[in-house]
Amino acid sequence: MPTVTMIGGGQLARMTHQAAIALGQCLRVLAGSADEPAASVSADVVLGSHDDLDDLLRAADGAVAVTFDHEGVPLELLRGLQDRGVTVRPPAEALQYAQDKLLMRTRLTELGLPVPAFADLSGEVSAARAALIAFGEVHDWQIVLKAVRGGYDGRGVWLIDGDADAALAVFDDRSGGDTVLMAEQKVAMARELSAMVARSPQGQGAAWPVVETVQRHGQCAVVLAPAPGLDEELAQRAQQMALGLAAELGVVGNMAMELFETIDGDLVVNELAMRPHNSGHWTMDGCVTSQFEQHLRAVLDYPLGDTAARAGTVVMANVLGAEHEPAMSMDERLHHLMARLPEAKVHLYGKSERPDRKVGHINIVGAPGQDVEDVRERAERAAHWMSHGIWTDGWDPHAATEEEN
Amino acid sequence: MPTVTMIGGGQLARMTHQAAIALGQCLRVLAGSADEPAASVSADVVLGSHDDLDDLLRAADGAVAVTFDHEGVPLELLRGLQDRGVTVRPPAEALQYAQDKLLMRTRLTELGLPVPAFADLSGEVSAARAALIAFGEVHDWQIVLKAVRGGYDGRGVWLIDGDADAALAVFDDRSGGDTVLMAEQKVAMARELSAMVARSPQGQGAAWPVVETVQRHGQCAVVLAPAPGLDEELAQRAQQMALGLAAELGVVGNMAMELFETIDGDLVVNELAMRPHNSGHWTMDGCVTSQFEQHLRAVLDYPLGDTAARAGTVVMANVLGAEHEPAMSMDERLHHLMARLPEAKVHLYGKSERPDRKVGHINIVGAPGQDVEDVRERAERAAHWMSHGIWTDGWDPHAATEEEN
Repeated sequence: MPTVTMIGGGQLARMTHQAAIALGQCLRVLAGSADEPAASVSADVVLGSHDDLDDLLRAADGAVAVTFDHEGVPLELLRGLQDRGVTVRPPAEALQYAQDKLLMRTRLTELGLPVPAFADLSGEVSAARAALIAFGEVHDWQIVLKAVRGGYDGRGVWLIDGDADAALAVFDDRSGGDTVLMAEQKVAMARELSAMVARSPQGQGAAWPVVETVQRHGQCAVVLAPAPGLDEELAQRAQQMALGLAAELGVVGNMAMELFETIDGDLVVNELAMRPHNSGHWTMDGCVTSQFEQHLRAVLDYPLGDTAARAGTVVMANVLGAEHEPAMSMDERLHHLMARLPEAKVHLYGKSERPDRKVGHINIVGAPGQDVEDVRERAERAAHWMSHGIWTDGWDPHAATEEEN
Repeated sequence: MPTVTMIGGGQLARMTHQAAIALGQCLRVLAGSADEPAASVSADVVLGSHDDLDDLLRAADGAVAVTFDHEGVPLELLRGLQDRGVTVRPPAEALQYAQDKLLMRTRLTELGLPVPAFADLSGEVSAARAALIAFGEVHDWQIVLKAVRGGYDGRGVWLIDGDADAALAVFDDRSGGDTVLMAEQKVAMARELSAMVARSPQGQGAAWPVVETVQRHGQCAVVLAPAPGLDEELAQRAQQMALGLAAELGVVGNMAMELFETIDGDLVVNELAMRPHNSGHWTMDGCVTSQFEQHLRAVLDYPLGDTAARAGTVVMANVLGAEHEPAMSMDERLHHLMARLPEAKVHLYGKSERPDRKVGHINIVGAPGQDVEDVRERAERAAHWMSHGIWTDGWDPHAATEEEN
């Protein structure tokens, strides 16, 4: 059986390894250290850096394809791998759009996809500062500043809530370093959605049901699958946009298209990721084919699997490291969770706990007749318990969400 | 998080490792070589022999418990581990009944469980031969000879179809070696069933739905879950028998109780296994909690998971090595299977193909309204293709089964 190499030893690689095992394989991971989530469970680990071409080549040696659990590999190294005959999936030509938000916004605009108004602040400092002021004034400073490269999980994003001084302070602070910024209009949104698809080198595409994502502290906290009450036409439009874009960009593997559903009932594209994605973790227990198996199938040029949901409602909630270390160990918390919610599907990443760090997730698969509020309450209660070691009976997820908004 | 050691590096350990990953762990395996199914995917491999106490102690060092993917560890070594403070689950006191069929039959008889009539042929050769003749004549030689220890997948079982000479030839051949034999009355059975349960050290028990197993060449080939048309009272009786026996014997972990459903609509216990079992592979895609996760939960003294089925019908079919090597590689066959049956859940073990060797299995989860014959046809077609590289449209599983009977 073939070997696939994944660059990065995080939880996405860890869960891809689980899927690789079923396909008769062992995922090879390039990891920075042996205790990373994937490196600590795979038999085939190459220690090294994703910033080093020699390390990347060592990891690629003998593998049928190289893929990624993050967007961090510099483009010139991806091209270096390709120039040396390594099969890189997704290829550099596609992955650049997931690495560079300005490039992505520009390309999506060319393709006629709905994106927020944006301003390029990548040029010479005084010109960029003037561009920011002009853009800010047009939009009453209801804008968002973003690092063009390298941001994730809320890092590299600054919400500017009408405060021109705050925006300029971020700009002045960052433009001194090597962070390139862009500005976007803040979208008047009803909620956030994610349309996940996979695409094979043959061009086969497959879309999972569109989900609602709930963000807290700038990172995905909860996923409701399918997105409750989403208009069927809008859901299909989101899937078609994602499938079409994946084809247009030449994506191979998974692609998550994060969207805003606007208060006018329209769609705007927010972010792109070309890899397994937090908004697809529910598929592990909720779909015929999980996102991890599907990503491997696509990377291996296998036919794609059935993306149908296996239940009417599935809710995923992330387990995050707590501000204060819980009194009980993770092992003890797991023990108690299992006693209380025998239906909870737990996925732990083998990571040490630090505040707001993603250390695992819980899936609750709704039984027939259980409504999304009930399923969500259990998923959030389980994740909150695993994070904090505190039970929150009567946990009201809406209250928590509003508090964050 | 804790570490569990599994003795044996086969497919059961491989699939247990997949479950361990979700629980934030890495399964440690004691394997004979690095290319065994589990050793080739786990980051924590101890190379050694299950027949060597030092190797067993090395594998147990630092683990919270030791468990097994086969029955092959000699009882005196299990006791040696226990004497040195190692937590062995299931303990030697329970596992002996899965290792020794004569001991098992005797104990089950004492407990009043239904077993076939049997004869102890373990004594001095001429007395044992006389006992065999007496037993054979009483049952018109409609008997089965079994090796008391070490048989599996049809090895160590001889069907004596009324042929006294054949029975005596087996006896004379075997009694020269060190194979201890026993004889059993052949049961007039309608079909074979399996009642799988798990039991924790706390005494919590959980039963999966009772399944029908289809045997070919003496080994499990197909599992139909739940057993089609099984009388509800009989199903509950089988579950109660298995739960009660697991408690009585002090089992920790999974226990499969293989049963005959007689032509009179009664139950007779055939075999016991105290580990994940082929008749439970369907739970990976078919139940809220798979047998592999459940075995770990029990061994770790965690509360047990929900054993409910996730579909009305699930069928598992084993992928067996073919007599003649298929023209296409396993990888190519997998490719074609995925194109033809995108709903097939494939589990490959990373083993080389030899005739009748279990190298993987396929689960097909029935959609609502699909009947068991339809689901079974697809599962058997998929497994036959993966085994032989030949599609059998209109595959008639009943014809194949009758041919074997």
